[in-house]
Amino acid sequence: MKSRELHSTLTADATLRLTIDDVDLGEPGADEAIVAIEAAPVNPTDLYLMLSMADLGRAKVTDGTLEAPVSPAVADIFAGRLGQPLVVGSEGAGTVVAAGSSGQGMVGKRVGVIGGTFATHRKVPLRSLRELPADCTAEQGASWFVNPMTALSFVETMRAENHAAIVHTAAASSLGQMLVKICAADHVPLISIVRRATQVEQLRALGAEHVLDSSSSTFGQQLGDAIAATGATLAFDAIGGGTLGAQILHAMERVASRTMKTFSHYGSSTLKQLYIYGSLDRSPTQIARTFGLSWNVGGYLVMNALRKLGPEAMTRMSGRVMSELTTTFASSYQHRISLEQLLDPETLRRCAATATGEKSLLVF
Amino acid sequence: MKSRELHSTLTADATLRLTIDDVDLGEPGADEAIVAIEAAPVNPTDLYLMLSMADLGRAKVTDGTLEAPVSPAVADIFAGRLGQPLVVGSEGAGTVVAAGSSGQGMVGKRVGVIGGTFATHRKVPLRSLRELPADCTAEQGASWFVNPMTALSFVETMRAENHAAIVHTAAASSLGQMLVKICAADHVPLISIVRRATQVEQLRALGAEHVLDSSSSTFGQQLGDAIAATGATLAFDAIGGGTLGAQILHAMERVASRTMKTFSHYGSSTLKQLYIYGSLDRSPTQIARTFGLSWNVGGYLVMNALRKLGPEAMTRMSGRVMSELTTTFASSYQHRISLEQLLDPETLRRCAATATGEKSLLVF
Repeated sequence: MKSRELHSTLTADATLRLTIDDVDLGEPGADEAIVAIEAAPVNPTDLYLMLSMADLGRAKVTDGTLEAPVSPAVADIFAGRLGQPLVVGSEGAGTVVAAGSSGQGMVGKRVGVIGGTFATHRKVPLRSLRELPADCTAEQGASWFVNPMTALSFVETMRAENHAAIVHTAAASSLGQMLVKICAADHVPLISIVRRATQVEQLRALGAEHVLDSSSSTFGQQLGDAIAATGATLAFDAIGGGTLGAQILHAMERVASRTMKTFSHYGSSTLKQLYIYGSLDRSPTQIARTFGLSWNVGGYLVMNALRKLGPEAMTRMSGRVMSELTTTFASSYQHRISLEQLLDPETLRRCAATATGEKSLLVF
Repeated sequence: MKSRELHSTLTADATLRLTIDDVDLGEPGADEAIVAIEAAPVNPTDLYLMLSMADLGRAKVTDGTLEAPVSPAVADIFAGRLGQPLVVGSEGAGTVVAAGSSGQGMVGKRVGVIGGTFATHRKVPLRSLRELPADCTAEQGASWFVNPMTALSFVETMRAENHAAIVHTAAASSLGQMLVKICAADHVPLISIVRRATQVEQLRALGAEHVLDSSSSTFGQQLGDAIAATGATLAFDAIGGGTLGAQILHAMERVASRTMKTFSHYGSSTLKQLYIYGSLDRSPTQIARTFGLSWNVGGYLVMNALRKLGPEAMTRMSGRVMSELTTTFASSYQHRISLEQLLDPETLRRCAATATGEKSLLVF
């Protein structure tokens, strides 16, 4: 079976090249299926892989190939991908058009897919597919994985690692909104930190109890109060750079130290955990270490978290996503684009303007 | 039974006060002993608790009380200790002079002690005592815990957390020298990072194979080579501030990514772990996050590590320390001081000059 796939290649001379190529997928193996992709969101992580911070202002399109320069420092970060045409697209939804012997019952079904979804067709292992509810469109199911599974994994990780509440930054994001709804439904105390006053009301309207505006002059005091009220010792941070993560750990330690019976200059024995899952600010994370020695800051990737949580948790989580696709996990898109438009610099710039909160959906 | 104890008190007006007070310890309970302390080292961590960064240049001694000002910002860090007279001293050695019913066999024995050792006598739980070898003096046993148990805990943690080798910074320290000897004996690959060329030879003479001078122009290249040679994915850092920790994680990722079959912009799946156990540089830890999402940076305290490793490991470790007190774990002291001299600003300044590599021993 044939597919047309987007390929992103970084060449040795620091040029990013995007092409759409015809690929023969062959026939599906016994445990495989071929899915005709119908919709795939253009997530920030997809753009990061696809564009590798190329300078779109200097992009040229010739004979169906987009080329744009990448700075040498950036090319160094991506040294591992030099010369390899990479497929792009974290997630999407489509219809099974062929399947191996163990998947005949899936043919004709609408499913959620992960990986390589910026393509007309994709050959995938049957076990990676998730069937969409019967009344669900491909557009409704396209963003079934990245944001929903990450948001659910925060709550699962909280339970698995014995924390009582969650702090979340850049919390007005789609993911942050889903997390508000999950935590409200599950009675998990959540502190949402946003960066603009208008976003406070937006999250309150979704049922959030603790929403803090980090641009407020009283933010530090409010953060301490909310941590004291919830007992939060776990934070998920999408920002990465700067001092906010350390400020959260510091506030957690101040609360923990209030209940210490004897002073220790090593701080409280309460473990304070910060997971960094995004890099909205690419500058270094600044850890001032004013919170004793019981703390941990780690990178967080949903795939690694799912591996730790185990297959049972993963099945439970994806089942919940599918049953709440049009409520808790509903996504909205401001732009619909075609595969060919991914080679248009103007379209790419619009997709990359994530600060606007707008999102593009690739449709076939 | 009577004791004379050093007490360190931080007052609400940001004054640090040191006194030596008579205390009645009472009689030991059934599971307790009273130890006459004979020797206790003045460790950097003890000075940090005892002095809390007070300005010794403005210290005044009146009627057996030393007073020195502490800056308001520092006083804020130590808010939890305001008004409490704290005992000081992490470790020491002495002779059991009294014991409860279950410890009669210990009376007259020379033992290692932890906690509150800047005192003539100390009442402690029997189970916290470690008997010194028969031919061992109190001076030889005084530093039995902090450096030896921390160094051993690094190797135990490496095994428990499935790493194959260790990177250690500020590695010319007493602790670093012990670690070199442990790793050589146990065939554990170790990369020692020092800050001066002269220290390279010093560690080589102890049997170290990989010793890197971070002031060398080829340090980055050497670090990558040593990590490739050893497979190190674990580092213990005594410096804390600055960029060295992130540089180590970056070098680990470069090595890990060489064996990746398919490129991922999330980096390798190899977990890279940095533990920060000291703060020679008190400035913020700068984490540039150029090493994917499988990484972890955490505070490290030997007591927490021992709790995780469990009582069996702890018994094994302290047994080894006792049997190698005069070899692997030998400490040397440049100054011997009395309890009363801890109230002398000039003596305190000399104790605090840790950069010289000199160490003081409190003797009774």
